[in-house]
Amino acid sequence: MIRSTLVGQRSESVRRANLSAIVGELHARGGSSRSELVASTGLTRSAIRGLLGELTAAGLASEASGASLGTPGRPSVRVRLNARGAVVIALDVEVDSLAAAVVGLGGTVLHHERVTRPRGHLAVDEIVADLADLARMARQALPHDARLVAVGAAVAGVVRRSDGFVAMAPNLGWRDVPFGSRLARALGGGFAPAIANEADLGALAEHRRGAARGVDDVLFISGEVGVGGGLIVAGRPLTGAVGYGGEVGHLPVNPDGARCGCGSTGCWETELGERALLVRAGLPADGGREAVETVLARAASGDATTLDAIAESGRWLGIGLAGLVNVFNPRLVVLGGLLGRLHPFVARVVEEQLDRRALPAPREIVRVVPASLGIDAPLLGAAELAFEPLLSDPASWLGHRPREVQLSTA
Amino acid sequence: MIRSTLVGQRSESVRRANLSAIVGELHARGGSSRSELVASTGLTRSAIRGLLGELTAAGLASEASGASLGTPGRPSVRVRLNARGAVVIALDVEVDSLAAAVVGLGGTVLHHERVTRPRGHLAVDEIVADLADLARMARQALPHDARLVAVGAAVAGVVRRSDGFVAMAPNLGWRDVPFGSRLARALGGGFAPAIANEADLGALAEHRRGAARGVDDVLFISGEVGVGGGLIVAGRPLTGAVGYGGEVGHLPVNPDGARCGCGSTGCWETELGERALLVRAGLPADGGREAVETVLARAASGDATTLDAIAESGRWLGIGLAGLVNVFNPRLVVLGGLLGRLHPFVARVVEEQLDRRALPAPREIVRVVPASLGIDAPLLGAAELAFEPLLSDPASWLGHRPREVQLSTA
Repeated sequence: MIRSTLVGQRSESVRRANLSAIVGELHARGGSSRSELVASTGLTRSAIRGLLGELTAAGLASEASGASLGTPGRPSVRVRLNARGAVVIALDVEVDSLAAAVVGLGGTVLHHERVTRPRGHLAVDEIVADLADLARMARQALPHDARLVAVGAAVAGVVRRSDGFVAMAPNLGWRDVPFGSRLARALGGGFAPAIANEADLGALAEHRRGAARGVDDVLFISGEVGVGGGLIVAGRPLTGAVGYGGEVGHLPVNPDGARCGCGSTGCWETELGERALLVRAGLPADGGREAVETVLARAASGDATTLDAIAESGRWLGIGLAGLVNVFNPRLVVLGGLLGRLHPFVARVVEEQLDRRALPAPREIVRVVPASLGIDAPLLGAAELAFEPLLSDPASWLGHRPREVQLSTA
Repeated sequence: MIRSTLVGQRSESVRRANLSAIVGELHARGGSSRSELVASTGLTRSAIRGLLGELTAAGLASEASGASLGTPGRPSVRVRLNARGAVVIALDVEVDSLAAAVVGLGGTVLHHERVTRPRGHLAVDEIVADLADLARMARQALPHDARLVAVGAAVAGVVRRSDGFVAMAPNLGWRDVPFGSRLARALGGGFAPAIANEADLGALAEHRRGAARGVDDVLFISGEVGVGGGLIVAGRPLTGAVGYGGEVGHLPVNPDGARCGCGSTGCWETELGERALLVRAGLPADGGREAVETVLARAASGDATTLDAIAESGRWLGIGLAGLVNVFNPRLVVLGGLLGRLHPFVARVVEEQLDRRALPAPREIVRVVPASLGIDAPLLGAAELAFEPLLSDPASWLGHRPREVQLSTA
């Protein structure tokens, strides 16, 4: 607690913090009236006017008189961030697809492309080359006046945040891959993309723009081939000491159980992941995306065997969630990926397991809901990650325009 | 991330934040030179001089010339908080003891008393009355000029932080007890004591003054009858949405296993708690403190059966820790209570389980150590909790002296 307040403040750092508060607020909300900014930041009207002047001069924000809506008094001035004033390219490496997006300040998605690819272990070099191509296409799709400030990427693996080193991505077949530096080289331009785990970024996106908006204690659990987690604790993403945190799929729920891809036995993922579901539903464990669609279609048509298989996955979902609810005392559990799609079929059994297994006090306040951003949550989270330096210190982006990121055209 | 920066800052709030930074730094370190304060807070020398003047005038701090130690230049001025300038009373409700302490600003323990009591379900009223007696004795032991500013308490149960409501404390036999309001009434004086879970407070104390000092990502696991946890995430205690977080003893590690005191089955506590150890060692499950001492004595003398029993507890400790290391990516695991005492006997098996079960990346950076504050960690953490309002906004304590807490003398 103390450490968070350790940094004293001088007047320049106060200006920076206040700019950050305003830009953060506008970025999260899309836009605000000046009065709303006064209310949400606690700053005086004149301080806000001055800071908005700086943002406007730098091309990051603009103001327009709002309609008066028949209420008496002056029409309030609406402030918006200019999406093109600062844009980021977001990339996403999933087990069976790659994606790129261009996202403007304020969260406007200006470009989006996802290409599916067959599962299986693809060489890192191929994926990096494909990502660089996607990034260049995204760059070309940009409006001429857009200012590219950063690149962010999500990876379905265990990622060190400082440099994008991927310690392990079993479902991509990666181990100890210096993904950050390889991607940087392929993109050219001499800058480092920001890289993090896909579930961590999915949680960030759902927290800022999705099902968990406005909720400060959130458990995001995303299931596909593996089971990942992203945690929001007191409004902040839990990254752990080096960014490896959130690997809820590797909680031991059955220590003498099945072998897990991580090398351990009985991890939650072995009971809750796609393979376990497919086997229970009588399909091949590695049936992949197509087999999953079969399961969902059969469930929708009321097939009893399939519904039983899904219910057993739901039971394991509830067992693990009970433990996580006891540890994190969250207000909201958001189910992403396949788990979000299974939610309608498993909601009841999950609630039953929570009733039975979670401590009554934390159980009482928690709700379980499906994610709202779908498969794009990690991609949108990668954009949010790329915006972090600008959001946390917009002042450093105002002085020297143009501070722009260039991609090599090779 | 954004939410943490949402509050804009006016000059008065800056002064408050800076005072908080200085007091927090001095409280954590015990004392500093002005130069150290410049380095650690980032404030200017003249700003620090002004703020220290305010603290000195209010009787919270004092300055003295340090010895010059033979180095050239002016001797640096040492700043210390005055322990008597603000003191708190800390209370601790453990399963087989009650304790009280008086702690001064800067962490000086001015008075300490612990009374053991037989285990078993004691009526809340009796415990509250005993605590109030302990608090009054502590009050009487205070130096005449000490200024009592708050009371904090640790409870071996699931505690709502806002009002000290104890939702559940199975080993005390409590369920839905408005402990906070009862304790407030017994203490008299019309103020609300700050109350939290004992393991959460143990973690806070170990982080601020014990084995986890200076480490920002910490898992504190405390085992006695039950198994509790306290988590420090990015330097801040993880409390969860209402303070119920950290209940790691109720992670499901064996869902078809033994019945747990919480009502679920196969919680970590059923394999790792005192009862499981005693049974494995061939002693009665409810042999209590005495039986535990027997186990430790036999282990020390090399008794094979006992060492095997302890090793099996160590194996379960490692299994659960592996999962928590995957989820939290901590730098340090601190073992408190009985687990700290078992550490010498189980260190090897714990490390083996971590090697086998934790993901290699987070496993590589984590160390497991015993707690350094022993049985008093929760008590000292209760003192830190009681100091929080003063530490987070010392300015509000400067204006109107004396703002002192009175206990009724009944």
